[in-house]
Amino acid sequence: MMPTLDQLNAMPQDAFVAALDGVFEHAAWVAETAVSSRPFATVTALHEALMAAVHAAPSDIGLDFLCGHPPLSPKALADPGLTSSSRAEQGGLGMTSLGEQLARFEAASSAYEIRFGFPFIVCVRRQTPPFVLRGLERRLTNMPDQERVAAFAEIAHITRLRLVDRVTGPGMPKTAGHLSAHVLDTVRGKAAEGVGIELFREGVLIKQAFTNHDGRTDAPLLADGPLRIGRYELRFNVETYFAGWPNITDPPWYDIIPIRFSVADPEGHYHIPLLLGAWTYTTYRGS
Amino acid sequence: MMPTLDQLNAMPQDAFVAALDGVFEHAAWVAETAVSSRPFATVTALHEALMAAVHAAPSDIGLDFLCGHPPLSPKALADPGLTSSSRAEQGGLGMTSLGEQLARFEAASSAYEIRFGFPFIVCVRRQTPPFVLRGLERRLTNMPDQERVAAFAEIAHITRLRLVDRVTGPGMPKTAGHLSAHVLDTVRGKAAEGVGIELFREGVLIKQAFTNHDGRTDAPLLADGPLRIGRYELRFNVETYFAGWPNITDPPWYDIIPIRFSVADPEGHYHIPLLLGAWTYTTYRGS
Amino acid sequence: MMPTLDQLNAMPQDAFVAALDGVFEHAAWVAETAVSSRPFATVTALHEALMAAVHAAPSDIGLDFLCGHPPLSPKALADPGLTSSSRAEQGGLGMTSLGEQLARFEAASSAYEIRFGFPFIVCVRRQTPPFVLRGLERRLTNMPDQERVAAFAEIAHITRLRLVDRVTGPGMPKTAGHLSAHVLDTVRGKAAEGVGIELFREGVLIKQAFTNHDGRTDAPLLADGPLRIGRYELRFNVETYFAGWPNITDPPWYDIIPIRFSVADPEGHYHIPLLLGAWTYTTYRGS
Amino acid sequence: MMPTLDQLNAMPQDAFVAALDGVFEHAAWVAETAVSSRPFATVTALHEALMAAVHAAPSDIGLDFLCGHPPLSPKALADPGLTSSSRAEQGGLGMTSLGEQLARFEAASSAYEIRFGFPFIVCVRRQTPPFVLRGLERRLTNMPDQERVAAFAEIAHITRLRLVDRVTGPGMPKTAGHLSAHVLDTVRGKAAEGVGIELFREGVLIKQAFTNHDGRTDAPLLADGPLRIGRYELRFNVETYFAGWPNITDPPWYDIIPIRFSVADPEGHYHIPLLLGAWTYTTYRGS
Repeated sequence: MMPTLDQLNAMPQDAFVAALDGVFEHAAWVAETAVSSRPFATVTALHEALMAAVHAAPSDIGLDFLCGHPPLSPKALADPGLTSSSRAEQGGLGMTSLGEQLARFEAASSAYEIRFGFPFIVCVRRQTPPFVLRGLERRLTNMPDQERVAAFAEIAHITRLRLVDRVTGPGMPKTAGHLSAHVLDTVRGKAAEGVGIELFREGVLIKQAFTNHDGRTDAPLLADGPLRIGRYELRFNVETYFAGWPNITDPPWYDIIPIRFSVADPEGHYHIPLLLGAWTYTTYRGS
Repeated sequence: MMPTLDQLNAMPQDAFVAALDGVFEHAAWVAETAVSSRPFATVTALHEALMAAVHAAPSDIGLDFLCGHPPLSPKALADPGLTSSSRAEQGGLGMTSLGEQLARFEAASSAYEIRFGFPFIVCVRRQTPPFVLRGLERRLTNMPDQERVAAFAEIAHITRLRLVDRVTGPGMPKTAGHLSAHVLDTVRGKAAEGVGIELFREGVLIKQAFTNHDGRTDAPLLADGPLRIGRYELRFNVETYFAGWPNITDPPWYDIIPIRFSVADPEGHYHIPLLLGAWTYTTYRGS
Repeated sequence: MMPTLDQLNAMPQDAFVAALDGVFEHAAWVAETAVSSRPFATVTALHEALMAAVHAAPSDIGLDFLCGHPPLSPKALADPGLTSSSRAEQGGLGMTSLGEQLARFEAASSAYEIRFGFPFIVCVRRQTPPFVLRGLERRLTNMPDQERVAAFAEIAHITRLRLVDRVTGPGMPKTAGHLSAHVLDTVRGKAAEGVGIELFREGVLIKQAFTNHDGRTDAPLLADGPLRIGRYELRFNVETYFAGWPNITDPPWYDIIPIRFSVADPEGHYHIPLLLGAWTYTTYRGS
Repeated sequence: MMPTLDQLNAMPQDAFVAALDGVFEHAAWVAETAVSSRPFATVTALHEALMAAVHAAPSDIGLDFLCGHPPLSPKALADPGLTSSSRAEQGGLGMTSLGEQLARFEAASSAYEIRFGFPFIVCVRRQTPPFVLRGLERRLTNMPDQERVAAFAEIAHITRLRLVDRVTGPGMPKTAGHLSAHVLDTVRGKAAEGVGIELFREGVLIKQAFTNHDGRTDAPLLADGPLRIGRYELRFNVETYFAGWPNITDPPWYDIIPIRFSVADPEGHYHIPLLLGAWTYTTYRGS
């Protein structure tokens, strides 16, 4: 059972360390350092204390810690020594979808490890494969000091997500983004009901829904975790919605309205209205 | 050399008939009937006189005429007896792109010929294959009298297009549609220059262009003939256009803006503006 | 103190009639008729029972009832016999704002009374003076039976509003409309904070507010009762909002953005978003 | 009769000077200086040569020249010594419309003359009175050197406008702006015909027109000279346009659509489309 923050604050030191086992990859010393800062008022404060321990560690310990992370690679998934967290995170990313670009990624990954002395670390739960590759190629041009900062920032993202899966309590850190849509019928001056919506991410259909009486989907399109940085497309099927309207040609001017957009902030709030007319539409980032 | 309308009006009767050979498939009698109505003030009037001859023909002659048309089919393309006009028209349509639906088309085509006693005739230069199939399936439900009207209407489209390829003169009938696009930058309040545009028809890239200083393409996207009834998509590549702007995230909110639309009127004027902001866009059918 | 529906249901018959005194103008018999239908599950049901009593009354009683209503007129306000409800309702309307058209109204009002045999009755709390005049002139062309229906429909509106001021309880009838606004900054992709908004009705400033962090006003612009049928204008002061932006000229392209609209449904929900760019804006009826 | 540039290039020196009399206020020496640069290829080149003479004049001559300009003031209009150009220009501006602010203008004008030693000069044909006042108050804060530059820039505007009234020829300088409007019906997907348009400048109605079959006015709204810097409002009367449409309430949601905008560039091209729906509209600066 997931412990509460209160329980973590009250439990013996070694139980605390055990409870956080796996949040920081092969690095029990992080929790051991933070234990003396208890009690924590919020889960966010707990995470900040853990990261402070990482940042305060001597340089060689920090390097060892970075080196303790598995490489991000389809091959690494076959390694029985991979932690279960890493296995789940990398598996959910699906780097093999890169196809021919996978070799390019592997080469850049090797160059990275040679250049910086530790493996390329990125919070894959916040990413899609093309942007992992793009990020790697950009970070390859960093200075070593700059890159160590970047790597620790990714560690913070990784461990924040792992922590919220292991502890409940007040002041949970923000780790989830939000994506929603809304369809307004500007010919009739009311919400558009019954419009089918498909959501694609990097070309893969990940959600289907219909607009309800308010022109919204009953649940947000995405809200359960970070929105992966990447390219998305909403497709609004309006052909049947228009059926029987006046001023509609056959075939209608619009059948499916695709709206492509990219998520840059995985924890961001993204609301996408579609103002739908028979011969016009408008979209914008709403609030 | 293409004769002028004046020349057609003045030439001997058999030269007139010869000059129009092939406009009406295997039916020299059409031109022979119309010859007595010369002179024609416009090419449109000439075409109307030819169609009037068709409409005035006795029912059995009309049926023979309809039966003289080749079936619309990839197999028909292999028939050495096909007229060169039909060969070019059918070849340009590309029914094989229907893939698995081709068998469905062939079956409906056979059913059509059995039901009506003449082959399915459609002006293929105004069509894409999915809409040929859709049209066939709809016309199968017509009453025979109704369908003969529909078939003659297609004959009028076919022959109008053939005629404007064979005669020049005043009062040419309208056979060409028009498709253009325009990009306005609503953040800077001026035309958006340098935006790459791709135009797809039924999934196939058929044109590429860039916007010029006026936010338009130097030439219309399509203007040389009928716009084929079907589904189109414009893709505006705005990612590089936004590069260096303030308020742009990385990746930018919009990279490629796709606008899907359908052409219902092959001779229509379609103008598609894109009002482009950093976090919004609007499109409409312009004029 | 305002009685609850429960109390009305339980009180002696004459107390019930007394509690509803004044809801129906000079017509205690309405409450006396409805009393036998107690208990009422909702305030709406109570109102419906009262209106049913009105509708069920013999024709001459109904006519007497209609005739018991004061004329709608600035002169009537001077009559000491006017009920306090009528005084407040007519006073809030402000017919004198009609100016030169007041004489036209008085003449039509006299013509109405001559034609139909009872004074012109309208629920003035749902109206602005120009639309009272317009409504009167339209209703003058009604057939007598048709107009009696129209008059009773206005009685229903008048008494519904009076009732919700006198009774509390479950199932209150809907008597309030809703007007709100929202400003989105489509250049920065977020809500526009600090935009001043003025609301005018028939040329008179009736509300001022600023947008908050969500681009909305802290409270709805109007929500406390019926929205008076009439012409409104929102004026968004964006000049200071734009100050310091790039791509803004001096003076800026937009300083004040006026949006005129008319309310046709006093109990309706009206939401008016403004999608604000530097060189464009869009508005629509939202939901 | 207005001389051509060719004639100016060819005429005797004193005739040239006489032909340009009044372009530069009480300063024949300007034309006398420029005469030696003949021939001029364009009218623009002629104007540039005249301005070059002004700029090249010794400081005290330049100051005398500036001092030779009449004060901008309703009182100055009564001075019989005012040149006819100045009289017409100032008369067209209408400073008395400033009302109570006129005293503020007069005071700032006196302060200006004391501060800089010459009267406040502005090209009034490019201005509305509120912006003359605003410009004066801003320029009062200039450093003397900076302000002399500003004054000469206004001289260039004044004399350019006077010159194009006196000479014809190739390469006329750009002195006219352009204002036009366009109404698109996005419910029917075509231009909106028959919409009444009123144009106001600083609250004064200056033009009325109707949209034609293309949704445009037959002539530009303004195109005959500089657009005066100031605040404008277009009012599109759409109430009758909507009459008989489905989904239109009574009164309609929109009756008159006002679009306020400000002109900052008198020689600019301003195109204002209105994308009109039943329950939405969009406007933008077009091209």
